[in-house]
Amino acid sequence: MNRNLLVECVPNFSEGRSREVVDAIESAICSVAGSVVLHRTSDLDHNRSVITYAGLGNSVLESAVLAARVALERIDLNGHRGVHPRLGALDVLPFVPLTGTPLEYCVELAHEAGRRIWEEVGIPVYFYEAAARTPERVRLEHVRRGEFEGVGEAIRSDPSRRPDVGGPQLHPTAGAVIAGARKFLIAYNINLRTEDIAVAKEIARSIRTSSGGLVQVSMNLTDFEQTPVHVVFLEVARLAEQRGIEVEESELIGLMPRKAIEMAAAGLLKMHDFHSDRVIENRIESALIR
Amino acid sequence: MNRNLLVECVPNFSEGRSREVVDAIESAICSVAGSVVLHRTSDLDHNRSVITYAGLGNSVLESAVLAARVALERIDLNGHRGVHPRLGALDVLPFVPLTGTPLEYCVELAHEAGRRIWEEVGIPVYFYEAAARTPERVRLEHVRRGEFEGVGEAIRSDPSRRPDVGGPQLHPTAGAVIAGARKFLIAYNINLRTEDIAVAKEIARSIRTSSGGLVQVSMNLTDFEQTPVHVVFLEVARLAEQRGIEVEESELIGLMPRKAIEMAAAGLLKMHDFHSDRVIENRIESALIR
Repeated sequence: MNRNLLVECVPNFSEGRSREVVDAIESAICSVAGSVVLHRTSDLDHNRSVITYAGLGNSVLESAVLAARVALERIDLNGHRGVHPRLGALDVLPFVPLTGTPLEYCVELAHEAGRRIWEEVGIPVYFYEAAARTPERVRLEHVRRGEFEGVGEAIRSDPSRRPDVGGPQLHPTAGAVIAGARKFLIAYNINLRTEDIAVAKEIARSIRTSSGGLVQVSMNLTDFEQTPVHVVFLEVARLAEQRGIEVEESELIGLMPRKAIEMAAAGLLKMHDFHSDRVIENRIESALIR
Repeated sequence: MNRNLLVECVPNFSEGRSREVVDAIESAICSVAGSVVLHRTSDLDHNRSVITYAGLGNSVLESAVLAARVALERIDLNGHRGVHPRLGALDVLPFVPLTGTPLEYCVELAHEAGRRIWEEVGIPVYFYEAAARTPERVRLEHVRRGEFEGVGEAIRSDPSRRPDVGGPQLHPTAGAVIAGARKFLIAYNINLRTEDIAVAKEIARSIRTSSGGLVQVSMNLTDFEQTPVHVVFLEVARLAEQRGIEVEESELIGLMPRKAIEMAAAGLLKMHDFHSDRVIENRIESALIR
């Protein structure tokens, strides 16, 4: 398995109140050369933290195994209370492809991480989304249904609820890890210059109001290669224009992959023969890697 | 001087007919670890070759000095005939900033290359464009006026024509190098869906016709940060629309820097608070470099 492709990993941990515990997890992730933490957020009500980090596949994998070990050592689900559903101390472990990385690579990474987390750390693992081994496990909510307490109970009578790797019982304090692979999610808003929410509701299903005579169309683009940012932008602008409304601006929430930016520029400039290797820095980087 | 910033270098050599000589020059450039050749073109009528390469400043500098040496060893301007004006065996040596590199860094690189080419190789050097030391030398045509034969003659009677470094006489076979720093040049065409050249001529000064009911507006964007690709695109589209003409497509000739792509995407999507570090790969790369 080639481990030199760029990957993002967004583990969710069932601890959002103790800064010390989350610091220890983040330190474990950063202790691997080449793993870079990009973002971290903790929610008190959810009692949950999300750490976004990235690097080449091999580094990202190592960090995930180390993070699982610290989560096992520092988090006990028997005492855990929070609004957000959870099955494990390290609850969700999605691997996300960046740049030219195929999704399939992240599927392999999730499976390899699952195998090692069971063998080296002792936490059983479920696989979801693109890494799911059965159709019933594609959706995270299905895997997590019943949470730590309910799943532990269900496993005893229902073999179909058993983990994909390890177990079959959950770990008594760390539960199970739900590892998976999914595409990069782009959170994107388009602000329309109108106060008429009814009109904007026609334009998009999900909608939020904000001040200043603007109506905001909010969306999560779950597959930007299938539904590119600029195609959504143009469609919203077209529908708005039909109703005499202008697009004021659009905004990105969080981060965006380089490919989405290149697709938007090429699409909006109508450069039909554009390809990533027309960007000089991309060409230099691929030459230096070769 | 920090030598770890990304730079492109586009040396022009006064040899476009002997593949062996140009191969030897290219090999010298590539012999430096981290220098990547991106493009090479030779013109028989011009009797001239252009090699585009890139890398971190230190690698690019080393390659330039080695290339000057091979040019001196393999090219004799006394026997050189071609349509294109030339002053040296290595005729022009422009350094071009990429990504976050400031132009001033390329000015320093040009000056350092000039000093070393004189001291280590023995060819005198002029500085032009951003690296020029006097206003009269900003324009390449002014520096090269009279070419190898005429400049060599002029130097004897006119001290103002002497090289910036070394000499004061030209090298007897290799002439002089004209080293400089300039911004990335984007060659960009916009194709309009019309056969009416007169209308298109109103839209842009430089214009070329092509087949298929299209008229092409061709341009060289010499400062894409001052005049971004998407601003030109929108302005041409606006002027065309006033005349009832549509933009069919646009096309990039050669390569484009990453920043120009990001500016185009952000500009056309009206993402007013966009910055390079909103692109996940950019953030990972700058973190890994730190």
